[in-house]
Amino acid sequence: MPRVVQFEKIGGPEVLQLVDTAVTEPKANEVRIKVKALGLNRAEAMFRSGQYLEKANLPARLGYEAAGTVDAIGSGVSHVKVGDAVSVVPGFSMNQYGLYGEVVVAPAAMVVKHASNLSFEEAAATWMAYVTAFDGLIETAKLQAGEFAVIPAASSSVGIAAIQVANKLKAIPIALTRKSDKKDALLKAGAKYVVATEEQDLVAEINRITGGKGANVVYDPVGGATFAKLVEASAKGARLVLYGALATTPTEIPLLPLISKLPTITSSVIMTTSCDPKKLKAAIDFVNEGLSEGSLRPIIAKTFPLDQIVEAHKYLESNQQFGKIVVTV
Amino acid sequence: MPRVVQFEKIGGPEVLQLVDTAVTEPKANEVRIKVKALGLNRAEAMFRSGQYLEKANLPARLGYEAAGTVDAIGSGVSHVKVGDAVSVVPGFSMNQYGLYGEVVVAPAAMVVKHASNLSFEEAAATWMAYVTAFDGLIETAKLQAGEFAVIPAASSSVGIAAIQVANKLKAIPIALTRKSDKKDALLKAGAKYVVATEEQDLVAEINRITGGKGANVVYDPVGGATFAKLVEASAKGARLVLYGALATTPTEIPLLPLISKLPTITSSVIMTTSCDPKKLKAAIDFVNEGLSEGSLRPIIAKTFPLDQIVEAHKYLESNQQFGKIVVTV
Repeated sequence: MPRVVQFEKIGGPEVLQLVDTAVTEPKANEVRIKVKALGLNRAEAMFRSGQYLEKANLPARLGYEAAGTVDAIGSGVSHVKVGDAVSVVPGFSMNQYGLYGEVVVAPAAMVVKHASNLSFEEAAATWMAYVTAFDGLIETAKLQAGEFAVIPAASSSVGIAAIQVANKLKAIPIALTRKSDKKDALLKAGAKYVVATEEQDLVAEINRITGGKGANVVYDPVGGATFAKLVEASAKGARLVLYGALATTPTEIPLLPLISKLPTITSSVIMTTSCDPKKLKAAIDFVNEGLSEGSLRPIIAKTFPLDQIVEAHKYLESNQQFGKIVVTV
Repeated sequence: MPRVVQFEKIGGPEVLQLVDTAVTEPKANEVRIKVKALGLNRAEAMFRSGQYLEKANLPARLGYEAAGTVDAIGSGVSHVKVGDAVSVVPGFSMNQYGLYGEVVVAPAAMVVKHASNLSFEEAAATWMAYVTAFDGLIETAKLQAGEFAVIPAASSSVGIAAIQVANKLKAIPIALTRKSDKKDALLKAGAKYVVATEEQDLVAEINRITGGKGANVVYDPVGGATFAKLVEASAKGARLVLYGALATTPTEIPLLPLISKLPTITSSVIMTTSCDPKKLKAAIDFVNEGLSEGSLRPIIAKTFPLDQIVEAHKYLESNQQFGKIVVTV
């Protein structure tokens, strides 16, 4: 019997268990996948620990991102066939589908044939990061060529994806990282500028880089005390998009910079794009084009075998990684 | 010689002085006005006390809002003629034009013939309030018929204008006021609901009023601790527009409600509309239509003679008024 990951209580990485499970037949508009690789992401860690927007119904499955081959298809599925190499876009509830496992079922609308030059590990590392960045920078912020895009937490998989998406749009990505040890890796990943926020004056650096004009777009998963500085360092009419809540300090808006610069502060979640068929198609086309031409390319921080799913989640929460953590199956 | 108000140092209401001044000829694209009434607003108090977006060049003049009759016109002015009853839209720097005075010069593009059923006092109380609310609710928030619009500081002239603008758009204005003593006046001014924020649970009340859906638009000159509650009480995709910074406490954004409800937080200033000829024409047409049909009507809190300009500014800063403070000349 194939194994899947399950958890019976909310908690730390150690609640994750590998259990045997019967193979289920895909229903209408579902696809069964023999999994080769899984991407891990913070939403999954939050779902496991009870901090996600949606609460887990216990015992719960887990997992948004899988790549593998089609094992069986349900009725109504015509865009993929048995044997195709596919990967899954996160656009569903983990209470309905959880992809951590050897053989899993996914909603057909979220199953994509990815660019053929990708490995399964890279394919598993693709969709969450790039569709999230697509929704944030393109759908929400409407980032334009020549604009400065500030990207806090730039070493995360979404941060790296955002750097590459900004470059593909001919915008200018400014990567933020806490300390300068990841600076070279960020420049190599495509950042035009890197600011180490614990070592440099953030507002002064952004003003220097942008010739005093300020940042046009901020794409931030952190918030907290740094956010007020980012409002201060904004250009007139800037768009600040929050897509996470990693900060432990309050997120304040400084009202006078807000009123003098007229920026827009909003938020972005992947589901806005992945649950809208028209936007999703635009995102998939954009990402596949970037993967084929090489302008987009996921960076894999480290791989773990499925047996070490607990260690993989511990590493995910260490915030030490540069890029995506992948589990091979 | 006609008298004008001047101040030689930044400070409280008592820095305002009446001084005699020579009558100046209007230059090209300027109009000289015999003033009958002046509207007072918070931007002027902030300019006087050094807290405005723009710093006063001393000795400074003051005043955005005047109504009176045309006394002389400069070259290039054809839309008004000597003797016309006119009023002035704030869309200029007070370092360039200050309208507190018996005879003053204003930029022709900002001089409007107002609806003929208005008194000079009402005309002086019109443009700052209604063009500000137009920019906030129509240009920025894009308030639609049937939507709930929450209006903090509802007893201010802009708050009352916003209530009336919301009604004209067939939206549903929810007025916020600190205590319930102004409740009846707010209902009479057009509010469909009134919440007394120091006496009621703001989030619970908005949820009750909106049937659990939340507010679609928030139009707020305060910020501060209440703002986080307004984000919490927002509907999915709400637009929260800040147009002032009255709060003395920090303005925090709660990140999880932000990410689950995807509201947009932005700001609005009158100049976005008043300094854009196309938007300004739309605003003037909208306001004149409302004034003619009676759906828009400024409420005058109290009038002072020009000799009592210091007392008028003291009253302005007392926050006791309901509606607009007007100075008669």
